[in-house]
Amino acid sequence: MGINISNFLSSKSKKRRMIDFQDLDHLDGLSISAVSANLYKDNRDDLVMFYFRDGANFASVYTKSKILSENIKWNIDQKTNKIFSLLVNTRNANSFTGIQGYKSMQTLAETIAINLTDKQNKDEDNPKIIKSRNIIFGCTGTIGETFPTEKIKSKIPDLIKNIKYTQNKLIWMKAALGIMTTDTRPKMAMEECNIGQSSIKIYGIAKGSGMIHPDMATTLGYIFTDADIPNEILKKLLKKNIENTFNAISCDGDTSTNDMVSIFSTGKVKHSKIKSFTDQKLKYFDQSLNKVLLNLAKRVVADGEGASKFITIAVQDSKSESDAKKIAFSIANSPLVKTAIYGEDPNWGRIIMAIGKSEADINIDKLSIKFGDIQVVQKGKIHNSYNETETSNYMKNSNIEISVNVGCGKKNFTAYTMDLSKKYIEINADYRS
Amino acid sequence: MGINISNFLSSKSKKRRMIDFQDLDHLDGLSISAVSANLYKDNRDDLVMFYFRDGANFASVYTKSKILSENIKWNIDQKTNKIFSLLVNTRNANSFTGIQGYKSMQTLAETIAINLTDKQNKDEDNPKIIKSRNIIFGCTGTIGETFPTEKIKSKIPDLIKNIKYTQNKLIWMKAALGIMTTDTRPKMAMEECNIGQSSIKIYGIAKGSGMIHPDMATTLGYIFTDADIPNEILKKLLKKNIENTFNAISCDGDTSTNDMVSIFSTGKVKHSKIKSFTDQKLKYFDQSLNKVLLNLAKRVVADGEGASKFITIAVQDSKSESDAKKIAFSIANSPLVKTAIYGEDPNWGRIIMAIGKSEADINIDKLSIKFGDIQVVQKGKIHNSYNETETSNYMKNSNIEISVNVGCGKKNFTAYTMDLSKKYIEINADYRS
Repeated sequence: MGINISNFLSSKSKKRRMIDFQDLDHLDGLSISAVSANLYKDNRDDLVMFYFRDGANFASVYTKSKILSENIKWNIDQKTNKIFSLLVNTRNANSFTGIQGYKSMQTLAETIAINLTDKQNKDEDNPKIIKSRNIIFGCTGTIGETFPTEKIKSKIPDLIKNIKYTQNKLIWMKAALGIMTTDTRPKMAMEECNIGQSSIKIYGIAKGSGMIHPDMATTLGYIFTDADIPNEILKKLLKKNIENTFNAISCDGDTSTNDMVSIFSTGKVKHSKIKSFTDQKLKYFDQSLNKVLLNLAKRVVADGEGASKFITIAVQDSKSESDAKKIAFSIANSPLVKTAIYGEDPNWGRIIMAIGKSEADINIDKLSIKFGDIQVVQKGKIHNSYNETETSNYMKNSNIEISVNVGCGKKNFTAYTMDLSKKYIEINADYRS
Repeated sequence: MGINISNFLSSKSKKRRMIDFQDLDHLDGLSISAVSANLYKDNRDDLVMFYFRDGANFASVYTKSKILSENIKWNIDQKTNKIFSLLVNTRNANSFTGIQGYKSMQTLAETIAINLTDKQNKDEDNPKIIKSRNIIFGCTGTIGETFPTEKIKSKIPDLIKNIKYTQNKLIWMKAALGIMTTDTRPKMAMEECNIGQSSIKIYGIAKGSGMIHPDMATTLGYIFTDADIPNEILKKLLKKNIENTFNAISCDGDTSTNDMVSIFSTGKVKHSKIKSFTDQKLKYFDQSLNKVLLNLAKRVVADGEGASKFITIAVQDSKSESDAKKIAFSIANSPLVKTAIYGEDPNWGRIIMAIGKSEADINIDKLSIKFGDIQVVQKGKIHNSYNETETSNYMKNSNIEISVNVGCGKKNFTAYTMDLSKKYIEINADYRS
């Protein structure tokens, strides 16, 4: 199951990333540790701690669901400028757990704060007092089950004991594996760029959709940089770049109560001060952040449940970006389109259907649809030289690109999704067998 | 494949309808004929003509898609108060056929008009001159293929020759079968009611979702009554009653370019004149029309592709009907919910997910969820006595009822859908095998 990532990264990227996993290494100001609290009863790592010894600036975007998990509520409630630790647990989503779930966050945050303050006193020349409000959480797994506070709390000393100041690719792999639920592969990405003369790292890990009863398709993405960027600017950068990356992917159109993407900036690399979001010095950082987010988001789709094909849907020349997005997701979320692609069927009629039902403005006389480089519909009509056999052959690729030009403006949006397979139904229905 | 209809009609209805098909018989003012134009190359009936010898008042609702089939465009363009004939063809949807498709409608309408005018001159004491604008069309089948105008045109004399003035259950069955595409069963429904002292018939047939490449899930529903109701009032009655019937069903969230539901009133039963939509005399007619539409709509869902379970989603106590509808369809269209039900898994977590992502207002502290009579969530928490085994047993039923109370208003909406099965994927992906 799953698609080889190298099939869909652009050829330019492929050259740079001949192997599936990039080697993430030391990122100054960040330490990672992972242990098992035996939440899955098989001793796999299920707790991952990210520790910023001097604190980190940060920004987060959370699920758009009206029902929030208790950890997301906790994170939103903390008013602080610096995060000292992010703790991620799997197996229990801490969603629909009510006051017990929220208080668990408080208990764990206090425990972590006390233990990390002790560590600061031991290790640092200028020890800081870490408060519970400096701790945030990512949770993913089953919903509605009592949160295993004690089991996790008892492992906090071990987590902290395991912290090393130099990180290597093995600890990144451990972290990426430790946050997985039903993902079949860990997801990591990195870019390097300059701010002024200074070389900056942007590293990230993610987990994707996995929904064995009664779990939900929680997406978690965590980005770390050694640049020094204020919270307000991080927030704007994240909001801007999430739109065409994590907010451009859809596995099955469902949304969890736990979705969370955060960026942490340790500030360990010195560069000229960034004073505004529009600062020209941020140009390469902005681009590189987008690459890391898009790389991770694509990995989430490619590992989507039952995925056999990775689908890119590029909508062009729309009246507004919001219209382009509506059309792209109407196609991406259509079970009829997704099953047709699974069946390797160049069923452009279903694309038309999905465009039509999207409620977005289109100019049907200019409408064009391409599968890869093959022109299927041009100016609202089937292309003269449309050849079903040629198009059917194209559909055998594991990477399917659908371009739709709606000819009524200048705005574009690209969405990424996967096909809808029998395997998806098996994973999501036959969990008891 | 498909669900036995008697399983989901209410027990009261069941008593009245012990057999699957109600016996529709003569409805004064309407004649039906069906022939094969060999569009499927297997001599099945594929053309069905409904003929109103004195014309019929009528109203239609059409697809909300921005891309309309050519027959829908034709129907909308005709400015007339009386319809003399509705011709329905299968195999070709006349969608994405451009000017050829539209002109086909004109050619066929002219041919039908001339032939029916001849018939009027032969049969009627006061013959009418029937114009092409008195003819409308329903088309369903493949899109993007040249419309087979000549094949259909050549069969119009046969269709008209076959017209008999007295209708029986066999001709209704022939009509219901003749409009099918990949439906596995014909769909018919009837009610009788009174307007004042006069007994009125409301008969209907429908076809549902069937999407073998490159077809789309076209829904067609045609209602006939011998009452005498003006066009404007028919329109209001249809618009009102479509909302909680045909607009309350979802098979896979997709919408065709050809969807069409119409009502025709032959006016052959004399009753006191209906002057307004709010006329008290319309009360029983209104209720009965709703029953016929709901009965047909449920049959469409029960025969949805790959359906193994019929699902009713009742959302209660919402702030607005539009919020209730958003929540109901968010649940009804969630692949995760639908696969869980296919897997007979009482996965209330996915219901929560679907409620959360609907963007509708909810009061989580009052949220309650029931599966049948089993209380699963109460006041935003899992119910004390929730028993997974009991609920799993309930999920074995072929008729699943999910009630959601969102505790923030007084508005309700009920949606109907079916589960998402491996069979659905097979039908929609493996058409080549």
